[in-house]
Amino acid sequence: MLTFDLLKQSPECRARLGTITTDHGRITTPIFMPVGTVGSVKALTSQDLEACKAQIILGNTYHLYLRPGCEVISHMKGLHRFIGWDKPMLTDSGGFQFFSLAKLAKFKDEGVAFQSHIDGSRHFFSPEKAVDIQMILGSDIMMSLDWCMGYPATEKQAMEALEKTTAWANRGYDHWQAQGAVNNLFGIVQGGMFKHLRTLSAQQLLEINFPGFAIGGLSVGEPKDIMYEMADHTLPLLPAHKPRYIMGVGTPEDLVELTGMGCDMFDCVMPSRNARNGQLFTSFGKVNIANEKYRFDESPIDDTCSCFTCKNYSRSYLRHLHKARELLAYRLHTIHNIHYYLDLMAQMRHAIEKDAFLTFKKTFYAKREPAATKEN
Amino acid sequence: MLTFDLLKQSPECRARLGTITTDHGRITTPIFMPVGTVGSVKALTSQDLEACKAQIILGNTYHLYLRPGCEVISHMKGLHRFIGWDKPMLTDSGGFQFFSLAKLAKFKDEGVAFQSHIDGSRHFFSPEKAVDIQMILGSDIMMSLDWCMGYPATEKQAMEALEKTTAWANRGYDHWQAQGAVNNLFGIVQGGMFKHLRTLSAQQLLEINFPGFAIGGLSVGEPKDIMYEMADHTLPLLPAHKPRYIMGVGTPEDLVELTGMGCDMFDCVMPSRNARNGQLFTSFGKVNIANEKYRFDESPIDDTCSCFTCKNYSRSYLRHLHKARELLAYRLHTIHNIHYYLDLMAQMRHAIEKDAFLTFKKTFYAKREPAATKEN
Repeated sequence: MLTFDLLKQSPECRARLGTITTDHGRITTPIFMPVGTVGSVKALTSQDLEACKAQIILGNTYHLYLRPGCEVISHMKGLHRFIGWDKPMLTDSGGFQFFSLAKLAKFKDEGVAFQSHIDGSRHFFSPEKAVDIQMILGSDIMMSLDWCMGYPATEKQAMEALEKTTAWANRGYDHWQAQGAVNNLFGIVQGGMFKHLRTLSAQQLLEINFPGFAIGGLSVGEPKDIMYEMADHTLPLLPAHKPRYIMGVGTPEDLVELTGMGCDMFDCVMPSRNARNGQLFTSFGKVNIANEKYRFDESPIDDTCSCFTCKNYSRSYLRHLHKARELLAYRLHTIHNIHYYLDLMAQMRHAIEKDAFLTFKKTFYAKREPAATKEN
Repeated sequence: MLTFDLLKQSPECRARLGTITTDHGRITTPIFMPVGTVGSVKALTSQDLEACKAQIILGNTYHLYLRPGCEVISHMKGLHRFIGWDKPMLTDSGGFQFFSLAKLAKFKDEGVAFQSHIDGSRHFFSPEKAVDIQMILGSDIMMSLDWCMGYPATEKQAMEALEKTTAWANRGYDHWQAQGAVNNLFGIVQGGMFKHLRTLSAQQLLEINFPGFAIGGLSVGEPKDIMYEMADHTLPLLPAHKPRYIMGVGTPEDLVELTGMGCDMFDCVMPSRNARNGQLFTSFGKVNIANEKYRFDESPIDDTCSCFTCKNYSRSYLRHLHKARELLAYRLHTIHNIHYYLDLMAQMRHAIEKDAFLTFKKTFYAKREPAATKEN
C-alpha cells in the first residue's frame, strides 16, 4: 500500500505539501497527472513526459479495456511495460466515460451495462470487474467504480448516484482486499452539487479504509463558483493523512484555487486537448497560436518557459505548423502545455515549502493579461 | 558553389562514393534526403532527424511558397532558421507539384500559371521566379523549373516538355548568375520514356554549367523496368565529376538498383508517407503493423534495427497505437522508416568503400522474405 507523507501544512491556507510513495516510485504533491487516455499521452513519448518532469500519468480503464483490451495488456505484463513508462500510474474506473462517452450506458445495482463508442459492442462493468481490469493494467493507484452525473441533476438523482457509488465502493474494496490488496484503491466522493450529499458521501466512504480519496462529479458543466464551493466544502471532510484527488479538473486557475483548498492530485485533458487545438497556456494567459498577429513573431510561446518547444521554436513557425495541420504541431504544442501545467505545480510546491503560497497566488494572477485571464 | 569530391568509383559496377560540401556542411553520397514538404518532415523534429543520421533534407518550393509564404520565410531569414535545421537543404522548383497537385496548371513559354490546391488562388511561376523563391528559402541546392509529365505521354508531348525544360533551365541559370550565383542550382533532365529524348535533354543541359544534374519525370506511373531503363540510360550521360540526383524515387530496392547505376542523391515521400499508413520497412521486407499477427508480438519492428522506435517499443504497442490512430504512431513509425532508408544508404556507402557493393546487393535481396519482396 502507498505511503503518504504530509511534509508541510501551509500556515497561510489549506495548501499542503506531501509525498506519495508507490511501488513505481515517489511523487511529490500537489501534483498534476497528464492523461494518457488509451496508452499514450497523445503525441508524446515517455521521454517527452520525463523531459516535462512528469512524475505520474493517468490511463483510462474504459479506453484500455476496449483497445487494446485486457488480453493484450495482460500478455505484455501490464500497462507500464506495454507503453514504456516505469514511473507511477493511476487509472480511473470507467465511471466518467460511462457518463460521458459510452453509448446507452445503463446503471443497475449490479454495475453498468454499456456499448462501446467505437463499435457498439456490448459490455458490463461491475465494481469487482473494474478492480480486476485495473489489476491487469497494474496501476499503482486504482479508482473505485463510481456513478457520475451531469449538471444539473435533481437531489433525488444525486442521492441515487451517491448510494450506488457507496455500495460499489464497498464491493470494490472488499474484492480488492480478497485479491490480496495489491497496489492501491481510492474511493470517490459523489453527491452532485448538494453540500449535504457531499458530506453524506464522504462520511460513508470514510468508513472504508481506502488509502486515498477522490472527489468526482465536478467539472461536469456546472458554473465555476459552484465547482469551487463543492470542492471547498468537501476537501476538509477528507482525512488529512491521506491523498486527496479532484478528478478531471481543470484550468491553471483551477489548479491554483484548489491547491489552496488542500487538494493534492489533479488530472485533466485540457493541456493536451487544447494543445491540439492550438491553445497554449503561458504565465501571461492563453495564446491562440493560429492568431494572425503571430505570423512574423520570432519569439517563443513564453519567454519565461524552459520547455523543448520554447527553447527551439518561434511562434511564427508554430503558427505555420498549426495552420498547415502538420503533425509536428501536435507534439510541440502538447509538450509546451504539459510542461506548463507541471511547472505550475512545481512552482506551487516551492511556494508552499517557503510559506509563500499566497504571494505566489497574487503574482500568478498579476502576471496574467486581463484579456487572457478573462478568456479562461 | 558546392564542391563534389568523387572519393571512390566502384570497380564492380557504376556505384560511387563521394562528398558534397555546401555552406551548411558536408554530406556523403550516395544519400537519401527525407522530404520536409511544408517545412517539416512530417511528425519529426530536427533532433529526430539527427538521431536518424539525416545529413540533408528536402523542402518543396510549391508548398512553402503557398504556406507560410515567402514574406514569412524572408522575415525569419530563410528556411533553415525558420524550421530549426542547420544542415544542408535542397528545394525542388515546384515543377512536379504543378504536374501532380496544383489545380488547372497551364504551361506556357513564359512559365506556369496555376491555382493553389488549398484555396484556389491564382499564381504564376517563371523559371526566374522559381530561383528567386528558392533564394529566399536559402536552400543549399536549388532546382531549375522543369516541365514534368505523366505516363504515358506521346513523343511529341515529351519533346515539347523537354524543349520548355531546356529553355527554362537556361533562363533560370542566367538569372541565378545575375543574382550573384549564391548557393547552387541544378538542372533537370526530362525526355519522358524516350531514350533519344533523354539523350537530347542531357546534351542540351550539359551545355549549361550547372553544379549538379537531376533526372526528373521518373516514377510517374511507368512500369518499374522502364524506370530502370531510363535511369540506366541517362545516368552515364551526366558528368562523373558532378552530383547526379534522381528525383522522387523510390522503394528500398530502387535505391539499391539506382545506386548501382551511379546515382548519388535520392528523395521520396515513401518512407514517411507509408509510415503514416502503418507500412514499415525492414531488412526482411515490409511489415504492415495493423496485421492481427502482431497483436501479442513483444519484439521490435526489426531486431537488427537500432532506431529509437525499435529500441523502445514492441510491435504489439505500435499496432495498438496505429489501430487507435494515436498521434504517437505517426512519429514512431516515421522515425523507423526514415532511419531504415538512411541506414540502407550508409550500408551501401560502406559496401562501395570496401569494394563489396555486389555482395551487399546479394545479401540485401537474400534477407528479404519472398512474400515481402514481392509486395514491393
